[in-house]
Formats: sequence, C-alpha cells, structure tokens
Amino acid sequence: MRILLTVSYDGTDFCGYQVQPNGRTVEEVLEKALFDLTGCQIKTTASGRTDSGVHALQQKVHFDYDGSIPPEKFTLALNSILPSDVKVINSKRVAQSFNARYSAKKKTYRYSLYVGEFEQPLVGRYKTLIPKTPDLNLMKACAKVIEGTHDFKAFMASGSSVKDTVRTVYKIKTVKKGKFIDIYVTGSGFLYNMVRIIAGAMVAVGEGKITVEEVQKTLDDGVRAIKIKTMPAKGLTLYSVIY
Amino acid sequence: MRILLTVSYDGTDFCGYQVQPNGRTVEEVLEKALFDLTGCQIKTTASGRTDSGVHALQQKVHFDYDGSIPPEKFTLALNSILPSDVKVINSKRVAQSFNARYSAKKKTYRYSLYVGEFEQPLVGRYKTLIPKTPDLNLMKACAKVIEGTHDFKAFMASGSSVKDTVRTVYKIKTVKKGKFIDIYVTGSGFLYNMVRIIAGAMVAVGEGKITVEEVQKTLDDGVRAIKIKTMPAKGLTLYSVIY
Repeated sequence: MRILLTVSYDGTDFCGYQVQPNGRTVEEVLEKALFDLTGCQIKTTASGRTDSGVHALQQKVHFDYDGSIPPEKFTLALNSILPSDVKVINSKRVAQSFNARYSAKKKTYRYSLYVGEFEQPLVGRYKTLIPKTPDLNLMKACAKVIEGTHDFKAFMASGSSVKDTVRTVYKIKTVKKGKFIDIYVTGSGFLYNMVRIIAGAMVAVGEGKITVEEVQKTLDDGVRAIKIKTMPAKGLTLYSVIY
Repeated sequence: MRILLTVSYDGTDFCGYQVQPNGRTVEEVLEKALFDLTGCQIKTTASGRTDSGVHALQQKVHFDYDGSIPPEKFTLALNSILPSDVKVINSKRVAQSFNARYSAKKKTYRYSLYVGEFEQPLVGRYKTLIPKTPDLNLMKACAKVIEGTHDFKAFMASGSSVKDTVRTVYKIKTVKKGKFIDIYVTGSGFLYNMVRIIAGAMVAVGEGKITVEEVQKTLDDGVRAIKIKTMPAKGLTLYSVIY
C-alpha cells in the first residue's frame, strides 16, 4: 500500500531535506519516526529536496507500507514522535502508480520579504529583510520577463552540474501587504537556487538597481548580471506541489 | 545620559527576561552586548520581566551611559553584536527622570491562537493550537467580565507571593482572521501568568466548556474554575508598553 504524507517543516535547524552524512535533515528525522512507529526501515520519496534553511508549508512524501496502521492514522501517530519543527498535516492512501516526485506537475515556492531598517526577531525567521520598499510595478514587470519557458542557466547556482537548464515558470504572483511582500513562483521544476535568484532579480529591479532589460539580457545571454543576488534561504518556503 | 531601547525578541530559546543563575536570558544577552560595545558593565532596567518562552515585539529597556556613542547609534551597533533572536529596533535619549519600569502607564500583551487539527511548524512558534473554532461572541462576552478593576487573585499562578492582587484591565480586544485569533489585553500591570490565564478563560468560554457566569464567579470568589487553564507561554507576546 502506498501512503502519501503532506509534511510541513521549519527549515531553520535542518541541513536541508535530503539525508547527508553530517547534519540533521528532514528526511532522516521523518524516516526515523516511521521506523520508531512501524518497526520497519521505510524508504521515503519526496517531491524534491529543499536546501539547508528552506522551509516547507506542504512538502509531499510517499512510501510503501503493508502493516496494520490505517493510512489516515499516520498523521497523529507520527506527530506524537516528530519534533516541533517537522509535522505531518495529512496522510492518505494513494494509487501504487503515484510517485511524489515523478507525478508532480507543478510546484509553487514562496519567497517572503519584509521592509525595515533592522532585523525583527518575531518576523525574520521566515522572511528576508530589505531596507526600502521596492517598486511593486517594476517587480511585476520583471516577473513578466521571467515567466515562460527559458534556458535558466543564469538563474542557477554556479557549480551545478545540471545539463538541461530549460525550465518553465508558469506564473509569478507578487503580493504586498504593508511592509510584507510575498513572491509566489510556480514552475515545472527548478534549478538549484533558481527561486532565490528570481527573487534576487525582482528585488534588484524593484529597488532600481538594475532594469527589466538587464534581466531580459541575463536570460538571453545566460550570464547573470552581477547585481542579481541569490537571496537567503530563510525567506524561501516550498508552498505547494500540484499533481 | 539615559538611553531607552526598544527591544524585540523571540522567547523560544530564552529562560525568560531576567538574569538567573542557570539558563540563557534576554537581560544577560543584552547586557553582555552593551559590555562588548562600550567596555562598561551597564545595568539595564526593563519595563518588566517576561517569563520563559514569552516573546516581545516591543520591550522597553533603559540604562545610563556617558560615553561617546550617540544614543541613536546604539541600535545598529548593538544589532551587529546581538544574536538573531534578540534585536534592538529603536534607541533614543530620554529624560533622566524617565524609568522604563516605573514610568510605564499601561502594557499590552497579545495572546495568539490558531485553529487546526495538528501543530504546524511554520505557524506554531508564536501561536497556540486549539482544536476547534471558538465562539467569538462568547469570547468577547467573557472579555467584558474580565475588563475593569478587580482582585485577580484567581488569575495568578499558584505559589505567587504577591500580596496586592488588585489590577486594572483597561481593554481586551479580540481579532479573528480566518484560522487565527489574537487577544490583546491592555492593563496597568499583570500578575504572574495573568494574561495566559485570561486567555485560558476566554478559550474555555469560547469552546463552551464553561459559562461567562463561571468566569464571573471565579473573579468574585478568588478561586479559579478548574476548567480555566493557563495557556502555553509560546502564544504570548509583550506587544507594547505605553508611557
């Protein structure tokens, strides 16, 4: 029987999603909880990894299990074992052909910003501080250039070994409420650091540091304009996975 | 010269505000940063202590200093030393007669709740989970009973040694937005755990576990109804201090 979990986590104290030799990861904590619950060494498959410090509102994770615990009982049972920074918010049975990674059609990431002079402890855990209010219309104009199917080579962390760097960004939605700005980026899949670099481009344009044309040129040439920074991990949240 | 700081902190990893022999406290971290900055052992005075796990959006802290750093420069200078869970958001000179503790006229605390079946890591750091949506009108009716000048003996943690337990609650404002409920309690001063017990009473009434009359009786008799719980520290934030 295949079970799909919806998992939410605060990435602050995790070295990313995927198990690695050193450092606490979400995958390891989740599989340890499944082991403690079922007594079985269960291998899980997530929709994708998230990097160190990146959060998830709704990560999707599947695994196979043939014991006596009903699928919908995994939520409560796992939550009684899991630490406070990772919790299951839903569990259900899915078809054996369903795959949390390969069945995913789209993913939405949210990049959250707040405007202020100084870091605020009660705000800054999940948002990145920017010093002045960016121009929302310029940010939206930048988003329009990024939307679509492009070679996003210039929007990938240097040193990545990925060969095919063409991706589709279906939609970028920018929402401003007072001092808070959320950028929702929906795409078919993302290169390493891609959303953090898209957010960096939008902020640079919104702050008037570069023009929309320079972002267009970055896309066209595959060479990133030096003023487009990779924004910090803490502002990034895997918001939803669409199947 | 007397300087007043506005300080914000995430109380999660602090054993409260006030210095104590064991455990990390906000006061200790702040005075250590002042020492590192000025080279002087500076004694600070806060508007009041907050308990272990309680947050502050705007705590007020004064100290005396006669060195060469201009008052308004303390914000940036201290923030470069302070850890991410405590930051100064304003610093300014005040009159020598001003006292962060004794000049305070009112304080507002916020108690934050969210409704859901399971804990959510990205929400639950500063809010307390409640299982079902409470009746907002009942909560407001309960607030009306609590507002005013009363002997709040029954709204104090057992074991407190305070003799005068009369306090004035000027106003309780309850704000609901979707699954989130914030209770703002403004008073002249508060007994140990008083706001957390007021929140507990309002939730119990809102959930239909006790009646408004039982809360009235608790106030009148000075004996707390057993169904009025002390809500967890993590949902409580010192919201503002009014001078």
